[in-house]
Amino acid sequence: MQERVTGSRRGAAPVFSSDRSTVPVHAVVLGIDPSLRGTGWGVIRIERGGSTALGHGTIKCPATWARSRCLVKIAAEIRAAIREHQPTVCAVEGLFFAQNLQTAMIMGEARGASLVAVGEAGLEIFEIAPRKVKLAVVGYGAAQKLAVARMVQRLLKLAETPSPDAADALALAIAFAQETGRFGLGGPKRV
Amino acid sequence: MQERVTGSRRGAAPVFSSDRSTVPVHAVVLGIDPSLRGTGWGVIRIERGGSTALGHGTIKCPATWARSRCLVKIAAEIRAAIREHQPTVCAVEGLFFAQNLQTAMIMGEARGASLVAVGEAGLEIFEIAPRKVKLAVVGYGAAQKLAVARMVQRLLKLAETPSPDAADALALAIAFAQETGRFGLGGPKRV
Repeated sequence: MQERVTGSRRGAAPVFSSDRSTVPVHAVVLGIDPSLRGTGWGVIRIERGGSTALGHGTIKCPATWARSRCLVKIAAEIRAAIREHQPTVCAVEGLFFAQNLQTAMIMGEARGASLVAVGEAGLEIFEIAPRKVKLAVVGYGAAQKLAVARMVQRLLKLAETPSPDAADALALAIAFAQETGRFGLGGPKRV
Repeated sequence: MQERVTGSRRGAAPVFSSDRSTVPVHAVVLGIDPSLRGTGWGVIRIERGGSTALGHGTIKCPATWARSRCLVKIAAEIRAAIREHQPTVCAVEGLFFAQNLQTAMIMGEARGASLVAVGEAGLEIFEIAPRKVKLAVVGYGAAQKLAVARMVQRLLKLAETPSPDAADALALAIAFAQETGRFGLGGPKRV
């Protein structure tokens, strides 16, 4: 059984409240693709001629580690990435696949650990549906993981193809940049 | 559809790794019943003649708040409770009901936020199945919420019936105390 876990809203939906009614201009964007054993993260700087990757990586937690040990590491490494690269906004997946309730709960734990670190640092958080991310990066909503990673590499002029988790996180950041209109497509929807 | 979200292990299962192969003696236990809008927590001190409640409460987050704002508040209030009452071990539900994938994911986020705070404070974390908690407190695995709250009140000699969420958290702490044998039932299972 593969089902969609969908938030109450679609598109780039804010999950962190803000007094502002429009999306402010952000120059440095953190994308996060949370999962217990391999959370991907990536930070880009939005520039006129195309964005630059400031950093990216995968937070790996061995299968032998207890869940909460992973959660502590995820929060710590997200905090470190924020300290180093100083993003002002964060994009996470707003709609994702989970095979069953247990998987959804465990993915939720990884998201919770990530979002605590991001929220405590004062970043605004937006959700973007995976299909929108693929559309923004590859131009095709059902693109394969490798196609996303290669396109991310090309768009950000990286020397090597990023790991799949880091590529997904960078793709989220790129999609956010596009949605906010600094990089191509139309304006963002705050729904 | 009501399905069980079950961890890979049943009973009092450690979710935070430890080098020790047996459960050490803990005198102050934190129970947490995580949920996005109303996380219950309770701290008890285990004593020979019966346990005492050191503190309990519900972390309320209005429905208008964005999810990550709730997660930040949950982590902050769990940290505050740990600072104030200095527990050395934490008990959370190891098996719970979720109506669908989205609910499971959102409950997972609240658990993730709680467990990051607990894990960072260095507490050991154990999971206990809700049925075991009810059995330990009321002597009946399918007990209603109010019956649990009233029994928690009686066991801890509280002046008032605690709120349902706080009562569930206190019940988890009581069940942990019983499982570790300082308070009644047999020894704990580290599975």
